[in-house]
Amino acid sequence: MTVKIDLPNNNSYDIFIEELKELYFDTKVVVVTNPTVSGFHLDYLKSKLDAKEFSIVTIPDGEEYKNMQTIDMILEHCFEHRLDRKSLLIAFGGGVIGDMTGFAASIYQRGINFVQIPTTLLSQVDASVGGKTGINNKFGKNLIGAFHQPQAVYIDPFMLKTLPKREFGAGVAEIVKMAVTFNKDFFEWLEQNDLNVEENVQIAIAKSVETKAYVVSQDEKEHGIRAALNYGHTFGHVVENETNYDTYLHGEAVGIGMMMANALAVKLGLMTSDEENRVKVLLEKYDIPTTYKIKDVEDFYEHFFLDKKSLDNKIKFILPIGIGDCKITDEVSKDDVIEILKGF
Amino acid sequence: MTVKIDLPNNNSYDIFIEELKELYFDTKVVVVTNPTVSGFHLDYLKSKLDAKEFSIVTIPDGEEYKNMQTIDMILEHCFEHRLDRKSLLIAFGGGVIGDMTGFAASIYQRGINFVQIPTTLLSQVDASVGGKTGINNKFGKNLIGAFHQPQAVYIDPFMLKTLPKREFGAGVAEIVKMAVTFNKDFFEWLEQNDLNVEENVQIAIAKSVETKAYVVSQDEKEHGIRAALNYGHTFGHVVENETNYDTYLHGEAVGIGMMMANALAVKLGLMTSDEENRVKVLLEKYDIPTTYKIKDVEDFYEHFFLDKKSLDNKIKFILPIGIGDCKITDEVSKDDVIEILKGF
Repeated sequence: MTVKIDLPNNNSYDIFIEELKELYFDTKVVVVTNPTVSGFHLDYLKSKLDAKEFSIVTIPDGEEYKNMQTIDMILEHCFEHRLDRKSLLIAFGGGVIGDMTGFAASIYQRGINFVQIPTTLLSQVDASVGGKTGINNKFGKNLIGAFHQPQAVYIDPFMLKTLPKREFGAGVAEIVKMAVTFNKDFFEWLEQNDLNVEENVQIAIAKSVETKAYVVSQDEKEHGIRAALNYGHTFGHVVENETNYDTYLHGEAVGIGMMMANALAVKLGLMTSDEENRVKVLLEKYDIPTTYKIKDVEDFYEHFFLDKKSLDNKIKFILPIGIGDCKITDEVSKDDVIEILKGF
Repeated sequence: MTVKIDLPNNNSYDIFIEELKELYFDTKVVVVTNPTVSGFHLDYLKSKLDAKEFSIVTIPDGEEYKNMQTIDMILEHCFEHRLDRKSLLIAFGGGVIGDMTGFAASIYQRGINFVQIPTTLLSQVDASVGGKTGINNKFGKNLIGAFHQPQAVYIDPFMLKTLPKREFGAGVAEIVKMAVTFNKDFFEWLEQNDLNVEENVQIAIAKSVETKAYVVSQDEKEHGIRAALNYGHTFGHVVENETNYDTYLHGEAVGIGMMMANALAVKLGLMTSDEENRVKVLLEKYDIPTTYKIKDVEDFYEHFFLDKKSLDNKIKFILPIGIGDCKITDEVSKDDVIEILKGF
């Protein structure tokens, strides 16, 4: 199946969710990947890919390499292979590969095209839609980057067979996020169906991509509704930052972050304890962590202010209203936040 | 006077050519400048500027610092001062400051606004119009960057009083470029008027900005006509690269590059020797270099292929047709180019 992402300024593109088809590009192509992904899938990709000229740059695997040094490595490869303005990068891997390849494409000679072939559940449902690209630095996650839309996204659910269980769970966390914030029916479907069954995960990917596509179409640059996709992220980013990005997968930190947001929503009367518990049960079904021991509550709170979403030193919280709806608010008192943080 | 730059996608902005007026910004503002400019003009700027919060980052002066390390320095300052997505950078200096400030703004938290206050003639007539931002690397000039339009440009011609003569000439070279490629009347006016007279330079800035604005409005992303603004640059970039960016000012290299393009145009019958000479006389009136000793002609030729403009390994030449018109062509034989290069 194909999901069309409708965007202004000639930025529209298609997401294909199906076994990878033959791809032909009449340009120079550089595939950006890492050793893990290339070990499992590069031969498969090569068997499907035809280009005018084609090379591979293999970057180190892991969020800790999502930095400017790795971007330089990708760019250097592109210069050495004399890519021009018509050339194309292919992001072949998970979210980190996608974010970095997109960012490198956005600044190489002031912007060239890129295509995503996401290989993890998380990047398939989330990172491949929306055009956010970027890297981390010592101040936090994704603080340097650009909005740069891919030319197309090819999601091959069959690649998930080699995905470790924890990474699968991290992807499910983003699927749950989409359902809690925007789609009650989808949430109920998730409660009733097992995503370890192949047809089910394909349906869930499509539903998530459609939901995100709808949201991004409404608000490409995140001036309004798109911020709701950060449900779980305001808290989750702090968790990742405090643990140096080496303890939790991004999706796992989002799982914890959603539970924190839910606790706040319950405290503010937006969600019932029963609904909070249904989300917890669903997350735990896929072994996604839902608790985190906060060392210093004040310090945790202080971390929010480095987040991109904190305009005018106000923290923007995305709080579920029951299940299937949410609100974005910067009107939460510090006392309320501190109190729920103490519960963790 | 005010020149309106009309661009699609909400990217339009105004260029004000007049004594700097009072500026107020209801956001955090970071001024990016260098020691030379701040020594001459920072007090003046401070007397005009009011902002919610305001700080200055001073970066080293010179093209050799137009690199990712300096970008990191600017970004680090922004993070330390907790700039958010509504914050603003002000580029206060010449073309290098403008290009780097714009690029830093384009990637800080996926893009924030910036304003240009260009202090050199070259940046006033050229670098402040068009939205090209970027840095150099070991492969060449401006090879990494983004298209990022300023929110406004404030050109204060009175700042030119402190500009060294060589830098003034470098700016005149870009003015001559605009006249040769697009405006015969303007070229004749330049032959008859002295730009060292204050009213004249103001007129010339306005004419150049208007010409460039018209061209950029037609073709923001340089798919067609905008490439004509690279007249003199295809050759000039190689000259700069061969001399490690430390011998000629950018505008001076463009002056040399224009003479090379003209020689090629004469050889191909597009321009007469008399017209070629008129351009030379005009450039030399402002002590702009018009000759350059090429060490190795083949090596010089090979350098073209790293230029961004060389799609499909073809070199795109911008050749004047007489004075006031030009053509963009990638159909020039290597032999013809080599022959004119041997003349230098």
